[in-house]
Amino acid sequence: MGLTHFDSQGNAIMVNVGDKEVTKRQAIARGKITVNQEVYDAITQGTAKKGDVLGVARVAGIMGAKKTAELIPLCHVLLLTGIQIDFELHPETRQIEVFCTVTVNGKTGVEMEALTGVSVTLLTIYDMCKAMDKTMEIGEIYLWKKSGGKSGDICNEKEGN
Amino acid sequence: MGLTHFDSQGNAIMVNVGDKEVTKRQAIARGKITVNQEVYDAITQGTAKKGDVLGVARVAGIMGAKKTAELIPLCHVLLLTGIQIDFELHPETRQIEVFCTVTVNGKTGVEMEALTGVSVTLLTIYDMCKAMDKTMEIGEIYLWKKSGGKSGDICNEKEGN
Amino acid sequence: MGLTHFDSQGNAIMVNVGDKEVTKRQAIARGKITVNQEVYDAITQGTAKKGDVLGVARVAGIMGAKKTAELIPLCHVLLLTGIQIDFELHPETRQIEVFCTVTVNGKTGVEMEALTGVSVTLLTIYDMCKAMDKTMEIGEIYLWKKSGGKSGDICNEKEGN
Amino acid sequence: MGLTHFDSQGNAIMVNVGDKEVTKRQAIARGKITVNQEVYDAITQGTAKKGDVLGVARVAGIMGAKKTAELIPLCHVLLLTGIQIDFELHPETRQIEVFCTVTVNGKTGVEMEALTGVSVTLLTIYDMCKAMDKTMEIGEIYLWKKSGGKSGDICNEKEGN
Amino acid sequence: MGLTHFDSQGNAIMVNVGDKEVTKRQAIARGKITVNQEVYDAITQGTAKKGDVLGVARVAGIMGAKKTAELIPLCHVLLLTGIQIDFELHPETRQIEVFCTVTVNGKTGVEMEALTGVSVTLLTIYDMCKAMDKTMEIGEIYLWKKSGGKSGDICNEKEGN
Amino acid sequence: MGLTHFDSQGNAIMVNVGDKEVTKRQAIARGKITVNQEVYDAITQGTAKKGDVLGVARVAGIMGAKKTAELIPLCHVLLLTGIQIDFELHPETRQIEVFCTVTVNGKTGVEMEALTGVSVTLLTIYDMCKAMDKTMEIGEIYLWKKSGGKSGDICNEKEGN
Repeated sequence: MGLTHFDSQGNAIMVNVGDKEVTKRQAIARGKITVNQEVYDAITQGTAKKGDVLGVARVAGIMGAKKTAELIPLCHVLLLTGIQIDFELHPETRQIEVFCTVTVNGKTGVEMEALTGVSVTLLTIYDMCKAMDKTMEIGEIYLWKKSGGKSGDICNEKEGN
Repeated sequence: MGLTHFDSQGNAIMVNVGDKEVTKRQAIARGKITVNQEVYDAITQGTAKKGDVLGVARVAGIMGAKKTAELIPLCHVLLLTGIQIDFELHPETRQIEVFCTVTVNGKTGVEMEALTGVSVTLLTIYDMCKAMDKTMEIGEIYLWKKSGGKSGDICNEKEGN
Repeated sequence: MGLTHFDSQGNAIMVNVGDKEVTKRQAIARGKITVNQEVYDAITQGTAKKGDVLGVARVAGIMGAKKTAELIPLCHVLLLTGIQIDFELHPETRQIEVFCTVTVNGKTGVEMEALTGVSVTLLTIYDMCKAMDKTMEIGEIYLWKKSGGKSGDICNEKEGN
Repeated sequence: MGLTHFDSQGNAIMVNVGDKEVTKRQAIARGKITVNQEVYDAITQGTAKKGDVLGVARVAGIMGAKKTAELIPLCHVLLLTGIQIDFELHPETRQIEVFCTVTVNGKTGVEMEALTGVSVTLLTIYDMCKAMDKTMEIGEIYLWKKSGGKSGDICNEKEGN
Repeated sequence: MGLTHFDSQGNAIMVNVGDKEVTKRQAIARGKITVNQEVYDAITQGTAKKGDVLGVARVAGIMGAKKTAELIPLCHVLLLTGIQIDFELHPETRQIEVFCTVTVNGKTGVEMEALTGVSVTLLTIYDMCKAMDKTMEIGEIYLWKKSGGKSGDICNEKEGN
Repeated sequence: MGLTHFDSQGNAIMVNVGDKEVTKRQAIARGKITVNQEVYDAITQGTAKKGDVLGVARVAGIMGAKKTAELIPLCHVLLLTGIQIDFELHPETRQIEVFCTVTVNGKTGVEMEALTGVSVTLLTIYDMCKAMDKTMEIGEIYLWKKSGGKSGDICNEKEGN
């Protein structure tokens, strides 16, 4: 298949998808941030009126997913039909896991939008907690599920999830 | 110390840094993407005129770092004085490692700019290679080094790096 | 009906409109700025080559309406088909009234685009006149008319208009 | 004084402030949205995990204030040092009042940033509640207090506040 | 025909294209930058790992074309289906010629996107070379070819090309 | 001197200007658009209330100059202190000439901001007139004058100007 984002001379292009069909597509990406106990407690005890880290990060993630085509040079602008950010807490590993689900009726998939939504959500959590923990780590960001489009359905199940 | 991005009522704020001193600051963040052998070969064999994945990703990362305050809700706009993206190839693990170094003369640190630069670079690599590998994973994103500012110098050395 | 921008757990989402039909929609919003006599005269006497406050504000309003999905977190990106800004002068109350008409063929309405267009137009008038009047007030911003979409036609007639 | 945003020929300009001093400045703007009882109850009963309208709107307002120079054509880009959004509830009039406080060490004031922050916050509340009330009205947006800069301190006290 | 971007009162509008058909459209714009011999040599000898001016400029041009509706006040947002930037070297005149091809399935043409892509590419070349030549000139930017849409196919052949 | 926007390995960087002095700088760029007689007449007869092409283009150019660091990958964000757009009409050649003057107190020059302001102004004129003339050409864009900064004053006088 090769690198599809380059033409035959090897130059970067925004691939012409004019002849692709508009289909209903969905992608779910996921990723984690590992924090120390103090941060983990602050985040999980946050309530609406008392330091809602995850609420702020969710808004940032939704807005970030909408900015994907501005951030990723060869991504097409898409009319996203839905964006959802969910969190799963892992107390034993002091991890916050983020899921971003993006849907579209379009000519290309929304993997990048879902992955960008996850990344911006995680970076926002990092930002709000960095005064309390300078060793946080963001990781395990990948495409979990995808449906619609020519390449068919995908489900990446990794160990430990 | 607690969550500094919230006021005493627990409301999110962009913290007032008006009284902080302008100092020379630097931050270096790093992160990795793990790819399959086919992608690894395509990336490492890329040249300027033949599919320069890392060249495109570097431009995206620099531009992404400049967009940090637009993406992360409570980040201050800063006049970044320099941005550099470097790559380190790990053939044994089929990983591309990204380093983003950001400098500023400012009232707040540039950790978030460096981390955002790393994230956008990695997402761009993902985008350009996703047709060849649908199981890539982005991870191990963290602040490696930081200097300047009140909290002093930081160097996070993780195992295996 | 409840708050539609939250899921059943109360989390903010960009609502999935993937199954909604594409229909032709229009919205007209309106709003006012009240200024002192000096400003009112300066605005109404402006000509193309001599301080065209309303001309600048009109351009800002059109560009602002296009930025709605960037500003309002849970708004969908839409391919607006038309944007128009009109002014009505009220000498007796020293008010400039702004109307913003937005059209789309889309899955969601364009109320927010029309309201954002009005708001940015009014803020731009404020900016250009603030050296002459520090007590200006922006107000009476509301959705005047709306057509298309499932909720049917709406016409809000308020007293005094 | 006249319209300072135009040159002597009447052409719009971004005024040259190169010779103005950098001083510490603050502005507080305020504004209201009037909603029906159902919306008022939904907003005031919202909690972090159950439909936190004001929490989402606060994030939007902070991000909106940072975008002022992108929205208002003749505004200078400023390095805002702090942004804060506060709410005051008026049950008797079913109004949510928004206050936006912005600080800067800069050559120009931050009135427009505070007013833009208020406007975007109000528009975001509108967006999240528009399914429940199609007659909401945004109004009474004005500069409440301002300090720093050559024109001195300002405090606009309007009746009823 | 007259100025179509103004209404009958002469006010600027984003023209309502709601009733226009969606058709497949393409536009190719071109433009040149004239540089001194030192810059010409530096650009043409650039390789992926040694100063790839044109590679960076190509990425900027693609991203710039996507920003057209943000930059040009009365342009409609479009879902571009493809963007390609090509270069032609003219050693005898020390010129780099840029071609930007844009495609869309839409209600309006993509001339402005192609012209904006060319302009941003040329500006980026200028930026990277300005330390070596302070007399560079950008010029001969025009729409070369256009197909699709009501006004039919266009091909502007200028002398010397 | 060589290509300053690349490091010693030839990788694109945003050059570190942290140690450069903040000085008062100014740049003036200029450029032209050549149009047919019908367009020339429409533009020159425009008034504020009747198709003010140049008024709209001026606003676009000022806003475009503020976006330079978003468009040009390796440009630093700067706090521009002033932006001015002027026009000169050349009836004999049916050309509109645009001048953009940008000032800053900063660590780097504002050539790119002035050139970007000129380019966006010219593209906006093109957009508004393209229904009447499909052969317009943009050209002769260059840095006319520059002052401040280490490289000293520059004045490019080209023949015919």
